[in-house]
Amino acid sequence: MNFKIDNLQYCNWSREIFKINREAGLDAVHVTIVYHEDFDELQNVISSWNKHFKENSDLIFLGNNFKDIEKAKLENKTAIFFGFQNCSPIEDNIALIEKVHEQGCRFMQLTYNNQSLLATGCYEKNDSGVTNFGREVIKEMNRVGVVIDMSHSAEKSTLDAIEISEKPIAITHANPSFWYAAKRNKSNDLLKTLANSGGMLGLSLYAHHLKDSTNCTLRSFCEMAAKTAEIIGTKNIGIGSDLCLNQPDSVVEWMRNGTWTKVKKYGEGSKNKPGFPKQPDWFLDARGFKNLDMGLKKVGFNENEVNGILGNNWYHFYKGIN
Amino acid sequence: MNFKIDNLQYCNWSREIFKINREAGLDAVHVTIVYHEDFDELQNVISSWNKHFKENSDLIFLGNNFKDIEKAKLENKTAIFFGFQNCSPIEDNIALIEKVHEQGCRFMQLTYNNQSLLATGCYEKNDSGVTNFGREVIKEMNRVGVVIDMSHSAEKSTLDAIEISEKPIAITHANPSFWYAAKRNKSNDLLKTLANSGGMLGLSLYAHHLKDSTNCTLRSFCEMAAKTAEIIGTKNIGIGSDLCLNQPDSVVEWMRNGTWTKVKKYGEGSKNKPGFPKQPDWFLDARGFKNLDMGLKKVGFNENEVNGILGNNWYHFYKGIN
Repeated sequence: MNFKIDNLQYCNWSREIFKINREAGLDAVHVTIVYHEDFDELQNVISSWNKHFKENSDLIFLGNNFKDIEKAKLENKTAIFFGFQNCSPIEDNIALIEKVHEQGCRFMQLTYNNQSLLATGCYEKNDSGVTNFGREVIKEMNRVGVVIDMSHSAEKSTLDAIEISEKPIAITHANPSFWYAAKRNKSNDLLKTLANSGGMLGLSLYAHHLKDSTNCTLRSFCEMAAKTAEIIGTKNIGIGSDLCLNQPDSVVEWMRNGTWTKVKKYGEGSKNKPGFPKQPDWFLDARGFKNLDMGLKKVGFNENEVNGILGNNWYHFYKGIN
Repeated sequence: MNFKIDNLQYCNWSREIFKINREAGLDAVHVTIVYHEDFDELQNVISSWNKHFKENSDLIFLGNNFKDIEKAKLENKTAIFFGFQNCSPIEDNIALIEKVHEQGCRFMQLTYNNQSLLATGCYEKNDSGVTNFGREVIKEMNRVGVVIDMSHSAEKSTLDAIEISEKPIAITHANPSFWYAAKRNKSNDLLKTLANSGGMLGLSLYAHHLKDSTNCTLRSFCEMAAKTAEIIGTKNIGIGSDLCLNQPDSVVEWMRNGTWTKVKKYGEGSKNKPGFPKQPDWFLDARGFKNLDMGLKKVGFNENEVNGILGNNWYHFYKGIN
């Protein structure tokens, strides 16, 4: 059986988008449900997801483990896996990891762009690595089955997390910096260490992570995937599109500024380009998986490898979570 | 006018202790009201302090600025200044700094022993310095008038804070490491930079910060003060006793472990000595200020210098806060 998985989306969720994901044939989507929310605020987010599940039960359901990806395939639905892009919901309390796992959380970034209580984000000047609390949290995430996601973390912190974690970790949405040296993209050394430890890289389709941004070509993206496969093999590469469909620009402003600064920060954007960037025309939404399928074959991947990148590799990774 | 100030106590507060502080002639005490509490939990702590103020209005009142130290002296009371030993009450929200200031907070440590969102604590392996959020917070603390306290912070973070802050900072309770190389004590370089920037060092009487612990002699302590004065002058030295009178050992366990670890940590203690250490017999409580007065004179300080160390230096520092 082949699976199609997008391992990162943060859309302004609606029935329309769930339909698009079904049209794209996605059997599973890892959805970001938290940026800066604390534990109480998380409860509100989960309530609104319960409404989505109720109102769209013909299209989606909450995924708990890899078997739900198989189930989704059989039922022509999309399994939704919850994830956090920051560790804010666990606050300073290690006991909350088990709680958020019970509530469906399967991926948690140890940091967003800034320093967290657990590790250093990629927008900090210095990176002190995984902290005392971070070590305890990684152990507990391993125990209960929440994947450590280092997409927005700094390099030493990520290497520390790989070393400390007894289970493979993930970079759910980023690209290699050899292709485009964005702060959020990752070095070859890091990607090799990640893959050697069984970790996954989800290639991002977010314009700020792409060479030539919105004008990035399908060919350039797929050549990057081929070069990445030369470096780390084909088995540890997937897709984490970082699609933010229908989100107003106020959301990206909140993602960047939260409540931590009084002076506006532009993150990956700039004063002249403060909002969400446009998607490249060959990946306007998840239906672009079809273009990826063609494009990846064109640069030399065989069918098996393409199926791996477009979903099977993530499926096998999910098998190891619990 | 001469003032007596103990710039750090965390006692199990009762009328008995407020009386002892009056007997010791303390015109002001900076009291720790927070270790791990968040903003909501802080509200409960403040409620219990309001009860203390009401029931002991003949002995104590809430201090807002240096004028309340003068008022306390005239009225034979002790002005109580609130402080936090961690930044947990401001959570991830810069707007809460103004709120906690309104509620009386005048000192806030950027870290307790572990990494915080603002800086690195002295028990971490690596120190990345003041973070992005930390820079914003220091600006805001300067603006509203909350003193940056780096007693439990790592060295680079402390040097960063001194550099970033437009106002002098404080190390309210620690000793020089030349005398006793505890993790919590401070290097000569750091103390020089602190004093050169107008910052204050409050010498600690907590056994874990003392050479020979509980058996430390008054003479040894006062000789340390004299040597410190040789290095940084006499004007930037005060007392921050770190007295924890009548606290059960469960409190020091909570201070060290909070909710961040499932494996018990002993901090400055050890498995065999997990509780609060005993005070040296010449400083069982604040009435030991009398012994300090004698002891400091004995090692060569003149009366003016002793009065500075026992309170006037802190009084002048308070003058610059707002």
